[in-house]
Amino acid sequence: MARIGVALGERSYDIEVGSGLIGDPARYVSHVAGRKAALVTNTVVAPHYLTKVASALRSAGADAIEIVLPDGEEAKTLQTLNLVFDALLAAHCDRDTTIVALGGGVIGDLAGFAAAVYQRGVPFIQVPTTLLAQVDSSVGGKTAVNHPQGKNMIGSFHQPVAVLADVSTLATLPERELRAGLAEVIKHGIIRDPEFFAWLEANLAKLLARDAAALEHAVVRSCQIKAEVVAADERETGLRAILNFGHTFGHAIESGLGYGQWVHGEAVAAGMVMAADLSARTGMLSRDEAERIRRLVAAAGLPTSGPATLTANRYLDLMAIDKKAARGRIRYVLLEKPGTAVLRSDVPEALVRQTLTACTAA
Amino acid sequence: MARIGVALGERSYDIEVGSGLIGDPARYVSHVAGRKAALVTNTVVAPHYLTKVASALRSAGADAIEIVLPDGEEAKTLQTLNLVFDALLAAHCDRDTTIVALGGGVIGDLAGFAAAVYQRGVPFIQVPTTLLAQVDSSVGGKTAVNHPQGKNMIGSFHQPVAVLADVSTLATLPERELRAGLAEVIKHGIIRDPEFFAWLEANLAKLLARDAAALEHAVVRSCQIKAEVVAADERETGLRAILNFGHTFGHAIESGLGYGQWVHGEAVAAGMVMAADLSARTGMLSRDEAERIRRLVAAAGLPTSGPATLTANRYLDLMAIDKKAARGRIRYVLLEKPGTAVLRSDVPEALVRQTLTACTAA
Repeated sequence: MARIGVALGERSYDIEVGSGLIGDPARYVSHVAGRKAALVTNTVVAPHYLTKVASALRSAGADAIEIVLPDGEEAKTLQTLNLVFDALLAAHCDRDTTIVALGGGVIGDLAGFAAAVYQRGVPFIQVPTTLLAQVDSSVGGKTAVNHPQGKNMIGSFHQPVAVLADVSTLATLPERELRAGLAEVIKHGIIRDPEFFAWLEANLAKLLARDAAALEHAVVRSCQIKAEVVAADERETGLRAILNFGHTFGHAIESGLGYGQWVHGEAVAAGMVMAADLSARTGMLSRDEAERIRRLVAAAGLPTSGPATLTANRYLDLMAIDKKAARGRIRYVLLEKPGTAVLRSDVPEALVRQTLTACTAA
Repeated sequence: MARIGVALGERSYDIEVGSGLIGDPARYVSHVAGRKAALVTNTVVAPHYLTKVASALRSAGADAIEIVLPDGEEAKTLQTLNLVFDALLAAHCDRDTTIVALGGGVIGDLAGFAAAVYQRGVPFIQVPTTLLAQVDSSVGGKTAVNHPQGKNMIGSFHQPVAVLADVSTLATLPERELRAGLAEVIKHGIIRDPEFFAWLEANLAKLLARDAAALEHAVVRSCQIKAEVVAADERETGLRAILNFGHTFGHAIESGLGYGQWVHGEAVAAGMVMAADLSARTGMLSRDEAERIRRLVAAAGLPTSGPATLTANRYLDLMAIDKKAARGRIRYVLLEKPGTAVLRSDVPEALVRQTLTACTAA
């Protein structure tokens, strides 16, 4: 088992990464012994892991209740959030209650937001069961629900008291979700760590075969990189924006197609290839390095170009209204060199159009 | 005009107290010039002050939108909150938008919570138009909405960037709400400042006659006291609990009768008389001092005893489930002496029953 400290002053916490963590009472005891715990999960994850985690919480001395929500991004709403509040209040949960989020990014975001605002804030533990959640949404304290007008429009920054990333839960993950999670793993190598990027090139086959040791290393290194960036910029006012590498284009793909057509990691994968291509066109990154990124994304079975149905004008419109657009100018995360991402809001539109043409499926 | 600094590190802000502030663009310009502002108010306040504040915001250089909500505590729900999000998103409000809460405590709590969670947090300005909101809910950063199972069950700590407490808005305040606001003013004298308490005894008639200078002093001193307490304990883990003086009994009255029968300040008024009586029974406070508190509450036209319909057993049940009960024990805020409040969770139930008997209307 590896332990990664996320240094955020009095909100610091540890991420534990390993196999078989979620059923181990010792992992929970310091947070829940003698207190209430509310285990929040969904109908897809519950049959696999609910009993195991609930038993571990009870063995750790918690008075645990179970809240099982509908599955899917479409359930990430204020209405579903209210189901959590209903259940917490029905069980007389007070401010001493710890919320345990068991599931992927949707459960983490939603249960984390419930923890952020229930009685003005209670502790929560993240138990991410997808690769994407383990390497991305469980680090950084971002919680949210969607609004019909936009994703993650209502939320908080609320740090967990602990994260248990158990790679053995990835055994039951659908293939498409495993690949989507790899997109964010690759991103962490691209923006911060050329050595890790090279390790991913060499070990991709093991990761796709779900080799536990390889997965553990990928999760550990991803979490370390994200934790470094988040610790330096908890409230997302500066450096942290580099974590959006590939996301400006990716969000345009997701919202242009309608959410749910491509999963997030797929859109980010194509977006990273676009951002690398644009970095090359601005003269910062060599064409060879951009091509390495494209090849690794392709090898992971992820899309390397945007959908044929989205025009360049549509991308530009969508990117302009994305919330990452600072005061109307589209801000891109580009690569100065492998491992070094920078923010640019002065990219000529002509270059962006060239990238979109080059990176759109025929 | 008086300015009170609330010292909360990087979340510090000023409360400005005076007459005619809300129509003065200079009060807003540093917060909204060149940016969006969303003015949130309700149908009762809007006819009096909406145009004035919206004009001032526009003169200050803001692109201001107006959001008018239903009035009343029963509108302080997740559903009404969602109306705010709908309006913000329809107007393409981004993270640079400042929310301006114009109204009483309900609007402040609700619009403040909207600001806390819209796009994970945007700035907000409090423009409280009731005495209660000026002296209480506009200081401390508590925001929330109600849930059918309990008041303020869903919320955040989110500090405003500025508070404008304009005592000229109190001219349109219904008599009953003025008196209810005085309950919290009196509370601040009781728990922290015997001199201010004596000033209130001497100046109550002026306050009831809405003398602007007297109101300004009462608001300033109340805000100073609350700001001192909050600055020492922003997240309500210790000292801040003394602000709940009168509230343990008061909340029981409110929820026992059903919310809306007595307004909050009335329930707190009777609760303060009870807490003073209980302080005398424990031997800490002299009977004379407890009687002074009862007399001032009575002179303010506020109730000095609980409703005849609530039994002692019902109080004890309600106080045990109140969220201020720490791990099942009822915690009382009592007076060690005038101006010095203390927390006690070891009060013999027999004494509490004596107080309830003595302080319940025949």
